[in-house]
Amino acid sequence: MTVKQLSLPELVDACAESAIPGVGLWREPVRSHGLAATAKLVRDAGLTVTTLCRGGFLTAADPAGRAEALADNRRAVDEAAALGTDTLVLVSGGLPPGSKDLRGARERIADALAELGPYAESHGVRLAVEPLHPMFAADRCVVSTLAQALDLAERFPAHQVGVTVDTYHLWWDDTAPEQIARAGAGGRLHIFQLADWITPLPEGVLNGRGQIGDGAIDMREWTGYVEAAGYTGPIEVELFNEELWARDGREVLAQTARRFVEHVIR
Amino acid sequence: MTVKQLSLPELVDACAESAIPGVGLWREPVRSHGLAATAKLVRDAGLTVTTLCRGGFLTAADPAGRAEALADNRRAVDEAAALGTDTLVLVSGGLPPGSKDLRGARERIADALAELGPYAESHGVRLAVEPLHPMFAADRCVVSTLAQALDLAERFPAHQVGVTVDTYHLWWDDTAPEQIARAGAGGRLHIFQLADWITPLPEGVLNGRGQIGDGAIDMREWTGYVEAAGYTGPIEVELFNEELWARDGREVLAQTARRFVEHVIR
Repeated sequence: MTVKQLSLPELVDACAESAIPGVGLWREPVRSHGLAATAKLVRDAGLTVTTLCRGGFLTAADPAGRAEALADNRRAVDEAAALGTDTLVLVSGGLPPGSKDLRGARERIADALAELGPYAESHGVRLAVEPLHPMFAADRCVVSTLAQALDLAERFPAHQVGVTVDTYHLWWDDTAPEQIARAGAGGRLHIFQLADWITPLPEGVLNGRGQIGDGAIDMREWTGYVEAAGYTGPIEVELFNEELWARDGREVLAQTARRFVEHVIR
Repeated sequence: MTVKQLSLPELVDACAESAIPGVGLWREPVRSHGLAATAKLVRDAGLTVTTLCRGGFLTAADPAGRAEALADNRRAVDEAAALGTDTLVLVSGGLPPGSKDLRGARERIADALAELGPYAESHGVRLAVEPLHPMFAADRCVVSTLAQALDLAERFPAHQVGVTVDTYHLWWDDTAPEQIARAGAGGRLHIFQLADWITPLPEGVLNGRGQIGDGAIDMREWTGYVEAAGYTGPIEVELFNEELWARDGREVLAQTARRFVEHVIR
C-alpha cells in the first residue's frame, strides 16, 4: 500500500532494485492481478510475501453480516496460503451502525477468531490481530491497544492467533513496550510494521501516515522493543499517504528503503 | 466553547433560559470581556463557574519557554480564583518541535506541577490534568490516558492536582472505568465533561466533537462510572464543532440542555 501506484510487476521490479527482500501484499491488487499470477510473480522473483492484508471486519451483529465476514476471512486465509505467506493481518472492524456497544463488538471478534483460528491453522496461516489507533475505534477497529489485542489473542493458541505491532497505532501508549514483551514471550508477535506520526491529520484521518523519519516516532526505540522481545521477523513499512501516492512509486520505494537504513538499522 | 458564538452576557442569559446552573469558561473570552466584569456578570446572574479552561502547555524544553509557561499558568490560577471557580483544567502540551521524546515531555509536566500545585492551593484552586485523545499526543497533549494523568497527579496532594474525565477523550479505553474508580477513591476526580464521538473526523481533528447523542458514546454508561466513583460535581458539555458554531448559539444551548436530559439524566 505504501506504493499502491505501482502495478504488482512494477512493484516486484522496484523491490529488486532497492534490495527489498519481502513485501506485504493487500488483497485488492492481488485480486486484480490474479491470485495464481501474483503467487508466480513473487515466487519467480524470489520475493517473500511477509503478510497478506487484510482479513477482519468481524463485528457485525446480524447473522447474515457475520456469516459473510467469516466466509470472506476464510477466503483471505486461502489467499494467504496461495501466496506463500504464513501471516494474515486482521483489522477487526468498528461498531455496527448505531451501536454504542464496544464491549459487545470486541466479544464478537473473539467468537469469530474461535471459528477462524483452526481454519487458518489447517492452512498454515497465523492470524495477526492489529490494534488500530483509538481514533479508528468507532468506524474501523474496536481493538485499540496492544493489551486488548493480546487479551483477545491469548484465548487461542499462539500459532493460530497473534498480533500485529504497528508504530503508527501504538506510539503514544506508554504501556505498549511491556505489552510487546508480553507478545514476544507468548510467541504472538507475528508482524512488526512502521509508519511515522505527522500532523495535522487529514480529513477522515486514514491517509495521513508519515514517511519514516518525518514525524514524532523514534523508530530505533520501537525496533528495540520488538528485538528485545525476541522478534526476528520481517519489518514492514506501511504508509497510507496521499502525497506519497501522488509521487513516482519507484522513487517513493527507494526513499523508503533509504529512510529504513537511516532510521531503523543501527 | 460549546457556544462560543455567544458573547458572555448572551451566554449568561441563555443559561438562565435553559435552566443551566453552571458554566465552564475559557480564558480568551473572559479576557476579551474583562476578568472583573466577567466575575461580576456570572456572580450577579447566580451562575456557577464550574471550571476555567485552560492552563497547561507545560512541555517546553527550553528555559525561556518553560518560564513563560509557568508564568502564564500562574495567571490562569489567578483568573480562576477571581472567577470563583476552584478548578483549572490543564491541557498539558505536545512534543516540542522536532522532539520524539514523549517520556521526557511527560516528566517536564510533573516538574511544572510541582511548582504550580502549591501556588494553586494557596489560591484555593485545584489543577485538573486532562488526558486528551491519543490523536493529540504529538501536537497538543502528551498525556493520553487517564492512567497517565493519575500517575502524574498522584505525585502531588489531591487538593493540588487531580484529573479531568472527558468522554470524548477516553471512551475507547477499556481500562478507563477502573481508572475513574482510582481517581474517585483518591479524591482526584475534579471535573467530568461530555462530548460525543462522531466520524468522519475533520482535517486537524480538533473541531469534530459530536453533540450528545449523535455518536458512539453511551453517556449514561460513563456518567454511571463517575457516579459509582463518588463524583457529585458538575457535568460540563464541551463541544468543539464548526457546524454547531455556525448555528444560533441559543438554539444550540437549548438543544444541548435537552440532549443532556435525554441521554444523561436517568
